[in-house]
Amino acid sequence: MLNGVAWIAVDWGTTNLRVWAIGADDRILAEASSDKGMSRLERDGFEPALIELIGNWLPKADAALVIACGMVGARQGWIEVPYRQAPCSPFSPDRIGAPDVRDPRLKVRVLPGIKQITPADVMRGEETQIAGVLLEHPDFDGVICLPGTHTKWARIAAGTIVHFRTFMTGELFNLLSKSSVLRHSLDEASWDAGEFARSAQLSATEPEGFAGRLFAIRADTLVSGLTPATANARLSGTLIGAELAAARSYWLDHNVLIVGNGTQASLYNEGLRTLGKASQTSDASSVTLAGLKAAHTEIMKDLK
Amino acid sequence: MLNGVAWIAVDWGTTNLRVWAIGADDRILAEASSDKGMSRLERDGFEPALIELIGNWLPKADAALVIACGMVGARQGWIEVPYRQAPCSPFSPDRIGAPDVRDPRLKVRVLPGIKQITPADVMRGEETQIAGVLLEHPDFDGVICLPGTHTKWARIAAGTIVHFRTFMTGELFNLLSKSSVLRHSLDEASWDAGEFARSAQLSATEPEGFAGRLFAIRADTLVSGLTPATANARLSGTLIGAELAAARSYWLDHNVLIVGNGTQASLYNEGLRTLGKASQTSDASSVTLAGLKAAHTEIMKDLK
Repeated sequence: MLNGVAWIAVDWGTTNLRVWAIGADDRILAEASSDKGMSRLERDGFEPALIELIGNWLPKADAALVIACGMVGARQGWIEVPYRQAPCSPFSPDRIGAPDVRDPRLKVRVLPGIKQITPADVMRGEETQIAGVLLEHPDFDGVICLPGTHTKWARIAAGTIVHFRTFMTGELFNLLSKSSVLRHSLDEASWDAGEFARSAQLSATEPEGFAGRLFAIRADTLVSGLTPATANARLSGTLIGAELAAARSYWLDHNVLIVGNGTQASLYNEGLRTLGKASQTSDASSVTLAGLKAAHTEIMKDLK
Repeated sequence: MLNGVAWIAVDWGTTNLRVWAIGADDRILAEASSDKGMSRLERDGFEPALIELIGNWLPKADAALVIACGMVGARQGWIEVPYRQAPCSPFSPDRIGAPDVRDPRLKVRVLPGIKQITPADVMRGEETQIAGVLLEHPDFDGVICLPGTHTKWARIAAGTIVHFRTFMTGELFNLLSKSSVLRHSLDEASWDAGEFARSAQLSATEPEGFAGRLFAIRADTLVSGLTPATANARLSGTLIGAELAAARSYWLDHNVLIVGNGTQASLYNEGLRTLGKASQTSDASSVTLAGLKAAHTEIMKDLK
């Protein structure tokens, strides 16, 4: 057993589960993670997957409060938590889901995602990261870019998610680099920074040529001896550049903060730089945890 | 044994093997096919895969001439036949490959593909289809579009492949519809013709928005109840429209002939129609066979 656990923060996405034990003073007492993301679990698999990581942190008598965000609240998740609707604040104590649990030491709360009607879009988890950014910068006015399998761009003003848009750039890169004919050309372990910058800029400024640039990577390998490092950077730059072309209205006239892990955030930062746009970056996991803490504070107020 | 077989025509692609027994008067005496495409075979698997289909057609004494086009001549094929280089005629008796065979009843000839240096590109098989078109229309001046897993657009003038470009639209559709998050939204067995036309036109005329239109299909399912038929047609239209944007210099000012199977050819025809461009279509397999016959005629001249 771990002493002094006040509550437990959980980031439960499609592919990963990450948990933190938080003390009364908001300090992190312990953390753990597993690959038991939403996509690998049936409905009755969520509680065991959680206990596997936090079983030793739970008190003997009382129930511990667990606050979770992400795809755990999707239709295929532990409990379907209805979306809130943009424009809206990134967090509200309404509509929080409470799945049934068998273990009496658990009291689980699942935060809702946010939907947008026109154009249709959805997020689950990113709203909590945005809440984390706003906790530190309550007056943030600009755009937050959250790179990932499905990258989000969100316009934030006056503490509100005004509108947002999702791009499946990360998933496209994975499919093309691992499962298409381009897999014979690429080496994901090597990189060509100059090629990334050139490809991102070309793709963003001449988006009409996009469809012709994919097979060209394979052809350049066969005809001109393109190296696997250059092929890898070119595919990445071409896809991120196409996203930057489509997201232009987000970044063009606004202050941009990129929330991501080191590598992904730096690619978006560099892609924007080739278009003459400066941006800041912020670490995704610390922002997620800040957002869960903000939710915890609000939920505790409600309980009082 | 089949009587009167003068030679055997073979179309050997990445995923399929198709063979025809041809009589002295150029009539088709028999035909057969299997799924033993290049990608499923090791080098020593090609001869058995061929014998499996044509074994009963072979004469007892003499060796039968087998003429093959397609990925069978690739590096991973039966024998690597060096590319010819565009601009060039679609067929030339130079550089024809002759793999070693164990069965004395076989004499196999593999036709070369064509490469292009700038921009880098390659084709194997489509050059034979183009030769088939030119056999019927020797004065063809315009563009031939050959839809497939990797669609080719080729500018043809004075009997020459002047330049060409490949688009991996078919492979992208397969990856996105079967292996991405969009698979939950799509039904490939149903269709919405109006949505296809709208999406193709939008994607071709506003290509900068391409990257944002993919996840929107999933979001529209979750938020607005988009039907699987409409999702299927929208993905297809979005991808073909993006190709039409990138291939604009091919089709804009030229006479366009689409060489494909019924469904694929009609999608390209319809996509072009939404952009105000009329095109003709021609059946792929008859054109392939015509090209192989043209190659046979030239090879026989050379043998005399």
